[in-house]
Amino acid sequence: MNSFKVGLIGLGNVGSRVWHNLLTHKELLTKKSGKTIEIKKIAVRSPQKALKVGVPQERLTTDWKEIVDDPDLDAVVELIGGIDVPYEIITQALQKGKDVVTANKALLAFHGHEIASLASKHKRRILFEASVAGGIPLLQAIQDGLVANRFLMISGIVNGTCNYILTEMTNGRMSYADALKKAKEMGYAEADEKLDVSGEDSAHKAAILCALSYRFWPKVGEIYTEGIESVDPFDIQYAGELGYVFKLLAIIKKHQGSKEVEIRVHPTLLKKDHILSSVSGSFNAVIIKGDIVGDQLFYGRGAGGDPTASAVLSDLVELARYPYVECAPRLFFADTESEYKVMPISEIVSRYYLRLNVVDKPGVLASIAEILGKKNIGISSVVQPEVSSFAQGVPLVIMVHDAKEKFFQEACLEISRLPFLKCKPIVYRVEDFHVQGE
Amino acid sequence: MNSFKVGLIGLGNVGSRVWHNLLTHKELLTKKSGKTIEIKKIAVRSPQKALKVGVPQERLTTDWKEIVDDPDLDAVVELIGGIDVPYEIITQALQKGKDVVTANKALLAFHGHEIASLASKHKRRILFEASVAGGIPLLQAIQDGLVANRFLMISGIVNGTCNYILTEMTNGRMSYADALKKAKEMGYAEADEKLDVSGEDSAHKAAILCALSYRFWPKVGEIYTEGIESVDPFDIQYAGELGYVFKLLAIIKKHQGSKEVEIRVHPTLLKKDHILSSVSGSFNAVIIKGDIVGDQLFYGRGAGGDPTASAVLSDLVELARYPYVECAPRLFFADTESEYKVMPISEIVSRYYLRLNVVDKPGVLASIAEILGKKNIGISSVVQPEVSSFAQGVPLVIMVHDAKEKFFQEACLEISRLPFLKCKPIVYRVEDFHVQGE
Ligand SMILES: NC(=O)c1ccc[n+]([C@@H]2O[C@H](COP(=O)([O-])OP(=O)(O)OC[C@H]3O[C@@H](n4cnc5c(N)ncnc54)[C@H](OP(=O)(O)O)[C@@H]3O)[C@@H](O)[C@H]2O)c1
Ligand SMILES: NC(=O)c1ccc[n+]([C@@H]2O[C@H](COP(=O)([O-])OP(=O)(O)OC[C@H]3O[C@@H](n4cnc5c(N)ncnc54)[C@H](OP(=O)(O)O)[C@@H]3O)[C@@H](O)[C@H]2O)c1
Repeated sequence: MNSFKVGLIGLGNVGSRVWHNLLTHKELLTKKSGKTIEIKKIAVRSPQKALKVGVPQERLTTDWKEIVDDPDLDAVVELIGGIDVPYEIITQALQKGKDVVTANKALLAFHGHEIASLASKHKRRILFEASVAGGIPLLQAIQDGLVANRFLMISGIVNGTCNYILTEMTNGRMSYADALKKAKEMGYAEADEKLDVSGEDSAHKAAILCALSYRFWPKVGEIYTEGIESVDPFDIQYAGELGYVFKLLAIIKKHQGSKEVEIRVHPTLLKKDHILSSVSGSFNAVIIKGDIVGDQLFYGRGAGGDPTASAVLSDLVELARYPYVECAPRLFFADTESEYKVMPISEIVSRYYLRLNVVDKPGVLASIAEILGKKNIGISSVVQPEVSSFAQGVPLVIMVHDAKEKFFQEACLEISRLPFLKCKPIVYRVEDFHVQGE
Repeated sequence: MNSFKVGLIGLGNVGSRVWHNLLTHKELLTKKSGKTIEIKKIAVRSPQKALKVGVPQERLTTDWKEIVDDPDLDAVVELIGGIDVPYEIITQALQKGKDVVTANKALLAFHGHEIASLASKHKRRILFEASVAGGIPLLQAIQDGLVANRFLMISGIVNGTCNYILTEMTNGRMSYADALKKAKEMGYAEADEKLDVSGEDSAHKAAILCALSYRFWPKVGEIYTEGIESVDPFDIQYAGELGYVFKLLAIIKKHQGSKEVEIRVHPTLLKKDHILSSVSGSFNAVIIKGDIVGDQLFYGRGAGGDPTASAVLSDLVELARYPYVECAPRLFFADTESEYKVMPISEIVSRYYLRLNVVDKPGVLASIAEILGKKNIGISSVVQPEVSSFAQGVPLVIMVHDAKEKFFQEACLEISRLPFLKCKPIVYRVEDFHVQGE
């Protein structure tokens, strides 16, 4: 039996489960890949921790260069996180003729194009199934199972931390701070939660999804990104009364005929009976709309050591099974000048939830309606939720029909200047992406 | 650019959409597969129909042997349905060194083992993504994306016709006959609906799922199969009042440590808030529980010309991309003596819904409870739904805790002999397979 020799860099949450599951599933993986996949060497920062995981001392090093330079290894698995060191590791590994597996969405979002080109130049492969939606084989579905389709939409919940927090805020009526605290206690949020709650992590994943489905890497800065830190439980409650649920969504859409791709991350209102609304806690779910296949939904654990290790191992099996084939441009995006680009957020069309806190006096609604009307923006409903304190003024929730973002934001700016406004308008986008046959 | 030459046999619902979508997505597919996939020859039974689809006369033949014998073709796509002729086509094509793509679940369920062995012997590939759950890349997920996992369960709705009928019976309170009629009018049921409504089609798909996940082909006759023809709207209603929904499920389960695999198809009661309960109309959805990855759900269109063509085309792309690799035993099950076998239905453990129509007199429930009690079968609830007519006796719905099928059936047999019973006991299994984190 041939052996497929792997060097592993990083033995944290994910790395330690890759090591563990490869041991406990050794026979199965050998049968399924036709080779014995062996982790020959592991680079760690703290050998003490590694010994506790059960890794034999002789396989350990604290210098990742030893792995990248080892001519005996077929592939390098990078699982340390961050950007600068992984960039060094991966580019050097490819240059030295090694295939690469990584779960590092941040690195790919910033350097994906360059890394993919480098891989292609050196006739090596870089696989990263674990980087989006953890254990769900979503990238494979886009690249292989749904390969015949043009993608009209790829949208969903790709950050379990945010989904957990929003679920707690909704079901447990918690404040953002309390829900975040609970998420940390439960291990669903990192000590430094910034990357998750700011929406950045979801934007990184959106960049990868965009690259695979539309063959171009958007600049991270071009992706409109709004996090959940300032979501107010009041709005969750008001939206709930109107039949909507808050979800942090990554949304990628292309309209037939257009060369521009919408790509954006923000808290979004979804109808309660929408299939994504029932995805709660730390789960992920993504809808893919293909022009031939119609709507599909993929649901599962998007993070955690084991689910993520499942995806890393599937990448290793793929590498072990198939030699590099020149004519199989699975990651062809690096070589192709895509005809697409990012649509500026000002150009998108959406429905909106608008909450204004106003001084309660006659004529207020009329002035607001006039401003919206001038921009040709239709109001679908107005609610004045009951509140116990009027210190912040009276809340007014206005649901708005489809409007171009630019015009809607202009209207909001004008509204924000009205004398009777007690604070800045609060705005959320509303999505109805229809899933056929629901 | 190399070309990958295909012969297509059968130009019906699926075949005509394969032809159409290959034309409309030619450039995309060429980019993605690195070769031009070309349908060089098409065998049909009725050339007139084929000309209407827009196929040029010179590519048509009415003799499939011309395709199988053509030394210039790389692959044969079989899309005629049935068993005998497809068996001839596929075995001959493999023997003549051609790769094969098919959507034919019936053929695979009966001859899958032999065909897979033959493919392996001739170093050819047979791909059949479209045979289960249509456009959903489920077989690929099992074989590739989730390859590192031991499967604890694969269960779901794999027949859109039955799901459509049950949905109509539930939401529209229709009789089976009316719902079937509507399904035919809507194009969701064939003129001859037998294979679908009897559960056989789902059993065929279960056999394929079993082969891919447990590496053995169960005999079709070993799969416990019950259809939806005799589901009574009364039971749908009673179950609804108790918080359950009827779904025709294919259930495949393996308990840790056991060498026996449960594999069965039957109408099943699911809690209304279970994620599968919200899958309505002609949609399919399958839950996969992997020992590393946890629970996943895949949802989409399980039938229809386009979704099925999407899967056929993805198989063609895979064939075009990768040459046959000896060490890549994606379909290794043919060569492996599996250690598993089918668990007899009498050995499964399930909860049950039991409806009895009885003469309404004292002592009835006591006698029934005594029989169940003797077998150590616990009752979780008893309801006596209101009815307008007592001609059939008074219905008594009993929900039963987990029990071994054998003992439960013995109890039912004994109950059926009680003098006050007005008709045979009606029995349905109840599943709670827990999806984590729902
Ligand atoms: N956790 C998840 O659920 C998940 C899901 C999807 C993707 N990912 C991605 O997977 C990657 C790893 O995540 P993780 O959760 O496993 O992170 P982690 O628990 O922080 O593990 C990273 C490990 O790498 C080690 N390390 C850091 N620098 C190193 C160096 N120069 N040489 C050798 N080892 C080094 C760290 O050592 P110390 O312990 O000494 O700091 C730590 O053990 C990240 O890119 C992350 O975004 C994670
Ligand atoms: N339809 C779906 O949604 C779906 C989904 C999954 C899998 N499948 C599977 O896909 C296969 C095809 O299904 P389908 O719905 O496309 O069936 P279909 O509409 O009945 O098409 C079959 C076609 O094959 C032709 N044919 C029959 N015998 C032939 C022969 N000896 N030589 C050449 N052509 C022949 C038929 O010609 P005539 O028109 O002259 O009879 C017909 O046009 C079946 O195995 C089915 O189980 C279908």
